[in-house]
Amino acid sequence: MTKLKIIFLATHQWQINELWEPKAKELAKNYDFDVEVRLCGELNDSDIKKVLKGCDGLITTWGSPLCSAEFINNYAPSLKIIGHAAGSVASITDESTYSTDVKIVSANPVMAQGVAEWSLLATLLTARNFGAYTAWHGMNKMNFPEAFNMLDIQNMTIGLWGMGDTSKHLLKLLSPLKPGRIIVASEHSSKEKIAELGAEKQSLEMLLKESDILHALVGMNRCNFERLGKEEFAMMKAGSTFVNCGRSRLTKETDLIEVLKSKHIKAILDVFHTEPLPEDSPYYDLDNVILTPHNAGFPGRDRFIPFLLEEFQKIFSSKKIQSNISKSRFLTMTKEAINYSA
Amino acid sequence: MTKLKIIFLATHQWQINELWEPKAKELAKNYDFDVEVRLCGELNDSDIKKVLKGCDGLITTWGSPLCSAEFINNYAPSLKIIGHAAGSVASITDESTYSTDVKIVSANPVMAQGVAEWSLLATLLTARNFGAYTAWHGMNKMNFPEAFNMLDIQNMTIGLWGMGDTSKHLLKLLSPLKPGRIIVASEHSSKEKIAELGAEKQSLEMLLKESDILHALVGMNRCNFERLGKEEFAMMKAGSTFVNCGRSRLTKETDLIEVLKSKHIKAILDVFHTEPLPEDSPYYDLDNVILTPHNAGFPGRDRFIPFLLEEFQKIFSSKKIQSNISKSRFLTMTKEAINYSA
Repeated sequence: MTKLKIIFLATHQWQINELWEPKAKELAKNYDFDVEVRLCGELNDSDIKKVLKGCDGLITTWGSPLCSAEFINNYAPSLKIIGHAAGSVASITDESTYSTDVKIVSANPVMAQGVAEWSLLATLLTARNFGAYTAWHGMNKMNFPEAFNMLDIQNMTIGLWGMGDTSKHLLKLLSPLKPGRIIVASEHSSKEKIAELGAEKQSLEMLLKESDILHALVGMNRCNFERLGKEEFAMMKAGSTFVNCGRSRLTKETDLIEVLKSKHIKAILDVFHTEPLPEDSPYYDLDNVILTPHNAGFPGRDRFIPFLLEEFQKIFSSKKIQSNISKSRFLTMTKEAINYSA
Repeated sequence: MTKLKIIFLATHQWQINELWEPKAKELAKNYDFDVEVRLCGELNDSDIKKVLKGCDGLITTWGSPLCSAEFINNYAPSLKIIGHAAGSVASITDESTYSTDVKIVSANPVMAQGVAEWSLLATLLTARNFGAYTAWHGMNKMNFPEAFNMLDIQNMTIGLWGMGDTSKHLLKLLSPLKPGRIIVASEHSSKEKIAELGAEKQSLEMLLKESDILHALVGMNRCNFERLGKEEFAMMKAGSTFVNCGRSRLTKETDLIEVLKSKHIKAILDVFHTEPLPEDSPYYDLDNVILTPHNAGFPGRDRFIPFLLEEFQKIFSSKKIQSNISKSRFLTMTKEAINYSA
């Protein structure tokens, strides 16, 4: 029996360093996969054809080529599965990909765990009003009058905008904290499905008005682009916290900065219109904002490829996989180009 | 049938404001309890006798009188249950209390939820290395080089020193995060009991050496008093984080400050030898320390008395209660006087 041939087509050396880790190598060995790791930049058109010839599985990541039906037919006609070692597959597949027999999986469920952890942390920081009184790494003293002005999670309303992998995982992490109420705005999940997961389906407007903390976790599409502006932020509950570790372009950033300046709401942000955030960003002057440098989904990268290889093995042995991306799922996924750089 | 008489003997008005809340009043009404709320300071010896005469239940809190067997026999001979609306009962009972038929319960399981939440937050801050790169409330800019230097919780070793209500609840909160390894040092819980809760029994020495984060959650007793000093801190894993929201006197504070100055470890602290922490405390100058003002257990106070009334109702209707404090449990509880002030 010939070994199954898998190509990992990376675009940067750091991707190989972070993703092609001992755990992944060991698993490939256990499954007797023949994995070849290549950098796209080193390959011309005919090299790619040679490299992909006869391959059964392709691992892609940030910056990998678009695997359209044409690409697959021309370069990798024997391909059975594409595994994307990153989040959204919107940059590496298009509608034509889904007309082929190639299965598509993504490490998004693994990355979502890291993003959900960050979101849990943001929730606890908000409930505890942590920024307002904590002495933080030698930069200030404790602010006692603010120290008992906090929320009890068991009485808190948590709003989740979007019901993708991150929201689903966040619901699991929040569950033992017994939040007072979790309300979800989603175009794609039914009332019943959301209720099954322990939350309540509501409109985005209701989320804005009633959430003590609002997590923007929805995918980007034409309808959501700059969806939150001046009017929406004004609707938000006074003193509540807006949290964004998803897509910056869900908001009008100048409006967000204005409402933060007014102190109507607070924010915890991991994503920005310009990244890295410029040194002179007005966010830096706000004492009601906590900023992290687009690293919410960072932990667990060494688990991306092992997750994909497990899925490959299931496909190769004709078992059912959970994380297969369907055409309809693809159409709801974030279309925004991911500006990720090492 | 006469109403059951319950006295809430508070020592400060803020305790009444925070603890005798609508939820508690409503539950008392539902159970048809006759609850009288009194401030100790307003009562002389003969008043106390009058107030406690014929009472079935007594609610105590921080600063309430010691309910020894003598106190009970003299002042409240009909007493069936004492419910402590705070944590450790060490200040309101002594060994003689446990020779009477009076049952003792404490709101400690409720307070432990709040402390465990704070401990979960400390764990996430540590895993994410959050203090090292986050832009925090307008005080600094993001430190990019540190931003990808974080731990994956799924590979992390978490040490819990002590296996009381807080550790037990923390294990529940950590469970969906799938920590790599949780090791527990406890004098009172068996290897089997700890394994059942998803952790691994180890020596305190092993916890010091192997934990990426070490939570001091053990009760104070003669053996633990200033148990962690220079030698123990030196044993700790380089770069690991010491977390204390329990008892400050578990450590030699000057030794903790020295090891923090050396940058061998980091710390997140809620308790201090002197509280409130003096303005000139050396902790304030350390850039590897996060400080909170002894408020880890603050949330959920409005649930203390409802929890106790539920327990009272069980006792009065001869049902079994889960949280009854036995003499042996009492002997393991923190003996340190709790310096709590509003």
